[in-house]
Amino acid sequence: MLHSFLYREIAKNIERKIETGVFKAGEKLPSIRTICREQGVSMSTALEAYYSLEGKGLVASYPKSGYYVCQKRRDIAKPNVSTPGHLQNADATHNLVSKVFSEFDFEKTILFSVGVPSQEYLPLARLNKELHKAILTLPGNGTQYESVQGNPKLRRQLALQSMHWNGNLTEEDLVITSGCMDAIGLCLMAVLKPGDSIAIESPVYFGLLQLAKGLGLNVIELSTDAQTGIDVDALKRLAKSGKIKACCLISNFNNPLGSSIPSESKKEIVEWMAKYNVVIIEDDLYGDLYFESRRPLCCKTFDVSGNVLWCGSVSKTLAPGYRVGWVAPGKYKEQILQQKLINSVSAVTLQQEAVATFFESGRYENHLRKLRNTLCTNSLKMIDSIVRHFPEDTRLSTPKGGFMIWVELNKNCNTSKLFDILMEQHISIAPGRMFTLQNQYQNCMRLSFGLVWNKKIEDAIAVIGKELKRGQ
Amino acid sequence: MLHSFLYREIAKNIERKIETGVFKAGEKLPSIRTICREQGVSMSTALEAYYSLEGKGLVASYPKSGYYVCQKRRDIAKPNVSTPGHLQNADATHNLVSKVFSEFDFEKTILFSVGVPSQEYLPLARLNKELHKAILTLPGNGTQYESVQGNPKLRRQLALQSMHWNGNLTEEDLVITSGCMDAIGLCLMAVLKPGDSIAIESPVYFGLLQLAKGLGLNVIELSTDAQTGIDVDALKRLAKSGKIKACCLISNFNNPLGSSIPSESKKEIVEWMAKYNVVIIEDDLYGDLYFESRRPLCCKTFDVSGNVLWCGSVSKTLAPGYRVGWVAPGKYKEQILQQKLINSVSAVTLQQEAVATFFESGRYENHLRKLRNTLCTNSLKMIDSIVRHFPEDTRLSTPKGGFMIWVELNKNCNTSKLFDILMEQHISIAPGRMFTLQNQYQNCMRLSFGLVWNKKIEDAIAVIGKELKRGQ
Repeated sequence: MLHSFLYREIAKNIERKIETGVFKAGEKLPSIRTICREQGVSMSTALEAYYSLEGKGLVASYPKSGYYVCQKRRDIAKPNVSTPGHLQNADATHNLVSKVFSEFDFEKTILFSVGVPSQEYLPLARLNKELHKAILTLPGNGTQYESVQGNPKLRRQLALQSMHWNGNLTEEDLVITSGCMDAIGLCLMAVLKPGDSIAIESPVYFGLLQLAKGLGLNVIELSTDAQTGIDVDALKRLAKSGKIKACCLISNFNNPLGSSIPSESKKEIVEWMAKYNVVIIEDDLYGDLYFESRRPLCCKTFDVSGNVLWCGSVSKTLAPGYRVGWVAPGKYKEQILQQKLINSVSAVTLQQEAVATFFESGRYENHLRKLRNTLCTNSLKMIDSIVRHFPEDTRLSTPKGGFMIWVELNKNCNTSKLFDILMEQHISIAPGRMFTLQNQYQNCMRLSFGLVWNKKIEDAIAVIGKELKRGQ
Repeated sequence: MLHSFLYREIAKNIERKIETGVFKAGEKLPSIRTICREQGVSMSTALEAYYSLEGKGLVASYPKSGYYVCQKRRDIAKPNVSTPGHLQNADATHNLVSKVFSEFDFEKTILFSVGVPSQEYLPLARLNKELHKAILTLPGNGTQYESVQGNPKLRRQLALQSMHWNGNLTEEDLVITSGCMDAIGLCLMAVLKPGDSIAIESPVYFGLLQLAKGLGLNVIELSTDAQTGIDVDALKRLAKSGKIKACCLISNFNNPLGSSIPSESKKEIVEWMAKYNVVIIEDDLYGDLYFESRRPLCCKTFDVSGNVLWCGSVSKTLAPGYRVGWVAPGKYKEQILQQKLINSVSAVTLQQEAVATFFESGRYENHLRKLRNTLCTNSLKMIDSIVRHFPEDTRLSTPKGGFMIWVELNKNCNTSKLFDILMEQHISIAPGRMFTLQNQYQNCMRLSFGLVWNKKIEDAIAVIGKELKRGQ
């Protein structure tokens, strides 16, 4: 059959070009339309060719963007499922985090350690316009306290956006905060007492660990898979035992693992936790930054009892420096409002209004689309670089969204020591030990692909690889 | 002697005019220059006349502003020294605070309950200019995270301003926060563990009580005088006993009492606490709003061991909605930086820069001078209104700075019930019970004089007075 012959020929041709490096990982491939025109084939033939390459894991498609070269997934070993122990050494975590973030020089250092989008990726001109408008229109030009619950227009926009994950929030269901960590802090303080226990994923964002410890909470780290997230059965057993009052989950594109809890597991977790009266604090900071065809759902999607406190912010998508975040606290709204009044009275007035009118302008979706494509391409390029430069026994996560790649190295590696060596060369990584209270993940590190990809970044990955090989 | 005869005549004349209400409390009196011209006397005679009236407590002088009529202080009974008990009922405090601040309607309600300056008192045009400049000059137009320690220009300006209270801070000694309560929260979390005990003034700002309880701290309320603040001997005994790890002091123009700890007592407290290793968390939010000739000193002024964490913000002087505050954490700087990174990463970028350049412009002192004069006049007018309208056995504080008057009523009064009655008439007061964890101060209330004084405000005081008399 001509059709079948043709699509195989086209696919073979592209495959050869990938193998010989004509097309590089992360690169955009010719569009369907271009192939039709140049090869004189039908659209279905061109599509068939890409489908077969996709099946082999050679290319990946992203909606409204086209096909990209990916590192062959079968070549990439994913990190081992984590098996956290029980002996905590919080001070070591604390000291390491201090060290890594004491050297915050944006000018000189390549910051693989910081999970924020480069400012080149942000809609600065439009945001400035919204700020200027906000100064003009707000009472007292933004000098006055915003209400404790926060800007109503912003809450309304967030309620509208919740439709993307099948949420049915109203503006009354939301409380604005000073970023996502502030939201999570409010949840922990409003819902828990010192001495209470919470379950979390492991490895997990160090700020969450430290915040919980600082509030006198007992943190139980659970085994976590780099693709599917927390061990659901372990979490369910713990809930049933009555030992935990809450669990904190970074449900989508987890920091640092990149894992996402599948929808059916989310539903299972929500139902089980409601049954055993365990609160779910959901950090959905990265949910909008998905690389596949649609936004992942949230635990909050399945929440009927008001037991899920869903948190987010614009720090990873629009403007870290604006300090605008939020929580949909379910049945804990009164407690959250009270806690917010106590902790900080209200969040910054001006930026709430600016983000609200930016959302109202309808440009957020368009901006997100571009940002997602860029991050996806960056992730593929970073994976490609790591595979080429790091030792052969390296394992790494291949996240389907967010900012982070989790790298697991040979057991003998010590990334805390590696950090010191790399800092001398103005490269900053996040050592794995930061992401646990226990003495583990010393052979792991978290790398952010939020930076603008260029030769300098690529070279820095090569330097890390060289140091790793030298250490073996 | 002609001179002595003349000045007595002038003084008598003014006194008569005050008594007959020609000059009203809070009103500005003719300047020295005017009296010289109109009465044809020397400057020293005019001054002598005012000195004698000042001695009688009939007028008060404010530097670079002139003489004002004050309510005769000898007629005003000051509140009794507080005698806190030991039985705590934190829930009652919590619920009352929730209730009072759930009705936050700026439009309809006269908010005697809120301690912020009316926006008419703020330098809005200039602040807007600084915001626009900041958007233009900041990297990423203010979308990027500020460093954890905060804007260096702002820290430098604060260091310069510390000279007003004989402080010798450098920019390295300061950390920027999201307002003053955020600063105090950081201090409590960085320095204390759940279960630790702290000493505070009583009555005291409810947010501090709730924050401390929320962090699992044991709060010990100490007896406090409406003029001289906390009972120094009781505090010293408690420190010596080893029972407390820290004390929190609103050292100048305390909220709600209006008290200020005298300089010599501050020095005594600082030395004693250093000796017994008790941390001092100093809330100096109101220190710049003094009505007398110079800024009061701080505990931090006398701190040689780095044991005092000094906190402040622009929320009461420039812009509550900007959320810009700070702490000079002494020897606890590393802990504070770490805690800030955990809690909120960084404070809002844009407003830090705008406040810094506003300070640099040299207009802050001029603005403060005007604001102080206005607040001082408002305080005198409010005291006058209270004396005229409230029951005769009313006791009240006569603060020498800040925003607040503390009113102590007949023992049978219940200001929590009064709150409900007044809210129906769109008047909001802060019932005394909010300012303690114990069942006391039910017969007290806090009134803010930060509103623009007009007939409506005066009438509202009359309404409160009428309701109080009806209740007797």
